[in-house]
Amino acid sequence: MTPQFPSLNEIRAAHQRIQPFIHRTPMMSCEAIDRLAGCEVHFKCENFQKVGAFKARGAANAVTKLTAEQRRNGVATHSSGNHAAALARAATVAGIRSYIVMPSNAPAVKKKAVAGYGGEIIECRPNLQARETTLQRVLKDTGATFIPPYDFMDVVEGQATCALEIFDECVPFDVVMAPVGGGGLLAGTALLTHYASPSTKVIAAEPSGADDAYRSFHAGRLIPIEAPDTIADGLLTSLGEITFAAIMNYVHDILTVSDDEIVAAMRMIYERMKIVVEPSCAVPLAALLKHSRGFAGQRVAIILSGGNVDLEKLPFGSTVTTPGAPDRHEQAGALSG
Amino acid sequence: MTPQFPSLNEIRAAHQRIQPFIHRTPMMSCEAIDRLAGCEVHFKCENFQKVGAFKARGAANAVTKLTAEQRRNGVATHSSGNHAAALARAATVAGIRSYIVMPSNAPAVKKKAVAGYGGEIIECRPNLQARETTLQRVLKDTGATFIPPYDFMDVVEGQATCALEIFDECVPFDVVMAPVGGGGLLAGTALLTHYASPSTKVIAAEPSGADDAYRSFHAGRLIPIEAPDTIADGLLTSLGEITFAAIMNYVHDILTVSDDEIVAAMRMIYERMKIVVEPSCAVPLAALLKHSRGFAGQRVAIILSGGNVDLEKLPFGSTVTTPGAPDRHEQAGALSG
Repeated sequence: MTPQFPSLNEIRAAHQRIQPFIHRTPMMSCEAIDRLAGCEVHFKCENFQKVGAFKARGAANAVTKLTAEQRRNGVATHSSGNHAAALARAATVAGIRSYIVMPSNAPAVKKKAVAGYGGEIIECRPNLQARETTLQRVLKDTGATFIPPYDFMDVVEGQATCALEIFDECVPFDVVMAPVGGGGLLAGTALLTHYASPSTKVIAAEPSGADDAYRSFHAGRLIPIEAPDTIADGLLTSLGEITFAAIMNYVHDILTVSDDEIVAAMRMIYERMKIVVEPSCAVPLAALLKHSRGFAGQRVAIILSGGNVDLEKLPFGSTVTTPGAPDRHEQAGALSG
Repeated sequence: MTPQFPSLNEIRAAHQRIQPFIHRTPMMSCEAIDRLAGCEVHFKCENFQKVGAFKARGAANAVTKLTAEQRRNGVATHSSGNHAAALARAATVAGIRSYIVMPSNAPAVKKKAVAGYGGEIIECRPNLQARETTLQRVLKDTGATFIPPYDFMDVVEGQATCALEIFDECVPFDVVMAPVGGGGLLAGTALLTHYASPSTKVIAAEPSGADDAYRSFHAGRLIPIEAPDTIADGLLTSLGEITFAAIMNYVHDILTVSDDEIVAAMRMIYERMKIVVEPSCAVPLAALLKHSRGFAGQRVAIILSGGNVDLEKLPFGSTVTTPGAPDRHEQAGALSG
């Protein structure tokens, strides 16, 4: 059964509602990448979005749709990723409380980010059951409203506002590409594209080490991933029922790529576009380059989903320059400035 | 004796002339950095410029000012940095030849970049004398015109077009900051600011390990650096006579920073702004943060000079994630997307 998805007007209203919470992110292009890809690629830079990822949109939309009574008790979620930071920030901007259940082994930098945005962190043991039971306890104790990270219509509606901005640009697109993890961004993108530009193909890209969307799409039923293994740490999750339904209805194809292909595309974005992206973000470009013959001469919009990467663990090599290291002296006395 | 600097109208004409060679780079700002700095910072993103650095401007301007006879024999320079790539590309776009003298130990990636832009590389032994004699031989053999990297009026005039774009923005600035190596960018910036906004202060920033501009500025005479040592590898060079004269006339102050301060500022730009910059590029922000009390509440424009960094040698840490490494599995099965 297909769930009731938001209409184009409802997505437009969401976009208006979340204006105080988000940046309108720029579209960027890069001649060198166009040459290499053999097509015209326009990148929607959600790595420049508030909290560094598109997740700011869905979280803001969910928060702005709360009733007055719900607002009094705040919001809660379990996440160690961008949704946690996005919900904490959206709640703070809206003047309400947020409770974020995080595994005790979550990186200190992620806890610091959530706390910095004003979220109250509740630690739990690092397994799925502990997260669920801890969340249930928090919801019971506080009366907070649970805002799931992706399988939730208000979140999908919020993520759809990214593609709304894409189709506001003058360029008509043959293809729109987004990465797929839990599917919130992809569902929103596909839905909006269906409304705004039905002739545009929606093509998802997924790491082959976490290819539940690819398998589910081709099997026609939800097949969750059991042991995902990919460098694209934002895409480890499996689809939910709402996002799967949207994908079956509105997505044209799903392409998979290896971690090596993801790292190569990520490197290209750093080197050629001079912007910082997280590995998940490079998955659509990796898929485009792998299957470039299928995109020859087309106009492609790629959503760069986020830029929250651990700079100490960039996958570009093992040599590290420290101040005073000898390899920097080779240019001493050079005349070039 | 003060040399004859270009007028505002001549800089405007240069800007028109080089349009086919350059991007108009965006200004970016970042609320988090404004909060940390206690002032309003607008970044002019020359890391997004053609060839990844402001050097595209000066090289293009020099090439567009060649006579028909000079064009026939092409241009030449010695450089292993951004000027080499910029001159090679400008020459190719203009349809003329370029000869780039590079030390035999220059990184392969830099040689590849110059060759990729269409420059002819002439290798020499890696010392200053070999560069000079090799360049002289090339000039004699080919009849090419030498385009120096910074101490050359056409190059200074070209670099001044960056600040011209800054003052085209609506915001009036209390301060403009640029890094200083050979001084081409700083000279052009100071000159243009003197014309376009005489009440705006021009403050240069320099690594303390290559502080010839700081010393020369305070001594009132050129004091070249003998053994520069800094992570900011674009700023190892010393001022020339033209750039020193411009700086003595139009720069208000020069601040120095340590390599640790440069790396901290560079990290802030990656983490908060999600853009890729080279270490030299982070020097003005490092100086601003170090002396933030002096900038309290002001509107500051900072020129981000370039983004050509070796991704394998980023100075952010020593641990490297490779596909399949255990630390990425902690999120497996997480519900956060």
